[in-house]
Amino acid sequence: MPILAVGSLAFDSIRTRFGSVEKELGGSATYFALAASYFTEVRVVGIVGEDFGAEHEAVLRRRNIRTEGIERAAGKTFHWSGEYAENVNEARTHFTHLNVFENFRPQIPGEFRATEFLFLGNIHPSLQVEVRRQVNGARLVAGDTMNYWINHTPGELTEALRVFDMLLINDGEARMLSHESSLPRAANHVLAMGPKALVIKHGEYGATVFFREGAFGIGHHPFRAPALPIEEVKDPTGAGDSFAGGFLGYIASQGELSREVLKRAMFYGGVMGSFAVEDFGTRRLQALSREEIDARFRAFRELTHLE
Amino acid sequence: MPILAVGSLAFDSIRTRFGSVEKELGGSATYFALAASYFTEVRVVGIVGEDFGAEHEAVLRRRNIRTEGIERAAGKTFHWSGEYAENVNEARTHFTHLNVFENFRPQIPGEFRATEFLFLGNIHPSLQVEVRRQVNGARLVAGDTMNYWINHTPGELTEALRVFDMLLINDGEARMLSHESSLPRAANHVLAMGPKALVIKHGEYGATVFFREGAFGIGHHPFRAPALPIEEVKDPTGAGDSFAGGFLGYIASQGELSREVLKRAMFYGGVMGSFAVEDFGTRRLQALSREEIDARFRAFRELTHLE
Repeated sequence: MPILAVGSLAFDSIRTRFGSVEKELGGSATYFALAASYFTEVRVVGIVGEDFGAEHEAVLRRRNIRTEGIERAAGKTFHWSGEYAENVNEARTHFTHLNVFENFRPQIPGEFRATEFLFLGNIHPSLQVEVRRQVNGARLVAGDTMNYWINHTPGELTEALRVFDMLLINDGEARMLSHESSLPRAANHVLAMGPKALVIKHGEYGATVFFREGAFGIGHHPFRAPALPIEEVKDPTGAGDSFAGGFLGYIASQGELSREVLKRAMFYGGVMGSFAVEDFGTRRLQALSREEIDARFRAFRELTHLE
Repeated sequence: MPILAVGSLAFDSIRTRFGSVEKELGGSATYFALAASYFTEVRVVGIVGEDFGAEHEAVLRRRNIRTEGIERAAGKTFHWSGEYAENVNEARTHFTHLNVFENFRPQIPGEFRATEFLFLGNIHPSLQVEVRRQVNGARLVAGDTMNYWINHTPGELTEALRVFDMLLINDGEARMLSHESSLPRAANHVLAMGPKALVIKHGEYGATVFFREGAFGIGHHPFRAPALPIEEVKDPTGAGDSFAGGFLGYIASQGELSREVLKRAMFYGGVMGSFAVEDFGTRRLQALSREEIDARFRAFRELTHLE
């Protein structure tokens, strides 16, 4: 089944200890869409400026991603600049120019409104609610958020969480949102706010999915997918969105939610996140093969598999 | 097969947000021995003072731990006092009174010198080398170390690493010892210093074992055991030594090293570490049953198991 992703399309200027890139195609919707494109048809809704050229759109089109929902506005595309020090888990932002993204009011094209799988990328929680309303055919709604919304728009975020079936956040965000330091307690707190499932991403240590009791009729024991130990994280930008793309792209490709589908989805999420960080920007995600992906899936499984 | 453990026996005064305890029985050898005692016969060599009473020895004896190797010296037993804040991964030390431990010169009783499995707990690296020399029947030598020895006795530690078949350390220690921020690179660096296998403990995220190529004839792909998400870490003291006890106790109980034995050992390590932190000191480790341990092993396996 197709999946619809709403989020940012951006240019990123990134420096890590392996080098730097200028105005590399990025944004939450871009990483998500590329990662998910290896599993199912992806439809993107976002906004770009006049500096977003045919060569940028071609990156998505080459992966058969549907780009009709990308709005072109007068002005410049969202541009983020930042760097990562030795500890790749922490970015230092140089600047964030929202540009046309500041006035993004997502309009879902009519033919996309029946899409059954919906990913609400990291945008203002009120816009997430608005998008969810427009996609009235959605059967599974997943999304993420970030520190900024947790701190600055807690009321709107609380509203948004009620429309989420699944939320994907990292350790720090889970603790901040719940005011709990223990992750299982944090998870219970967040699940009581709305989502049936909560995926907490642990960076290089993998990710754990926690379920509300009875969610999806599949039991409530948590499940953890480890991340592959990676020798060199060249550029961690987009790892979380790539995880989400692999995770939800696989779920959408299966069309139904069983415990086994969710477990495999957790592994595919980790696999796509691990590819994303191997090169700058989306470079690695642009040119994978399903064979490479499945080989890493097997390596990943072997990493923790007991007979 | 029996396992011999050499390390500290101590009294710990601990405060966490769940309460506090005074002069609770602790020390690396104590945690290790109790955890390992559920799998095999454990022989302890350490030193205590006049304040170490029959009631303390009884804690070990009730688990059938061999205590003849515990030396009684004039003076007081090693006493550590500290507290853990909200972030249970960091202890703040109030004081460390080494007392009789300061002059510990391990003497291995004659009948223990043929023990095939040897655990060198966290003592001065020169003493680790000295113990290894005395236990001339040892077939598998494992041990740990800590920041203090990495920083203050790097030469002696380099010597000690040459007698280790396996080293167990945490993320921070691996990075400090190797001057590498990437864990797989850190692992390769440490493995080049001597050990055939390196277990890196990630706290609540589990642990990964890395192998030198050809080690034990079982291939060199890393293996990761996740930790169970724990709601309440009441007292993290001794989690690492309890991991080591479960890990090596299980290996000794099997008597031989296959890849499958090592994998299971990683899970048993995590299981024993997870029990240790559920109550203050060694309380939880004193009164487990093998059934409880195996039930958690299965829960642990299910946590990451794909069909």
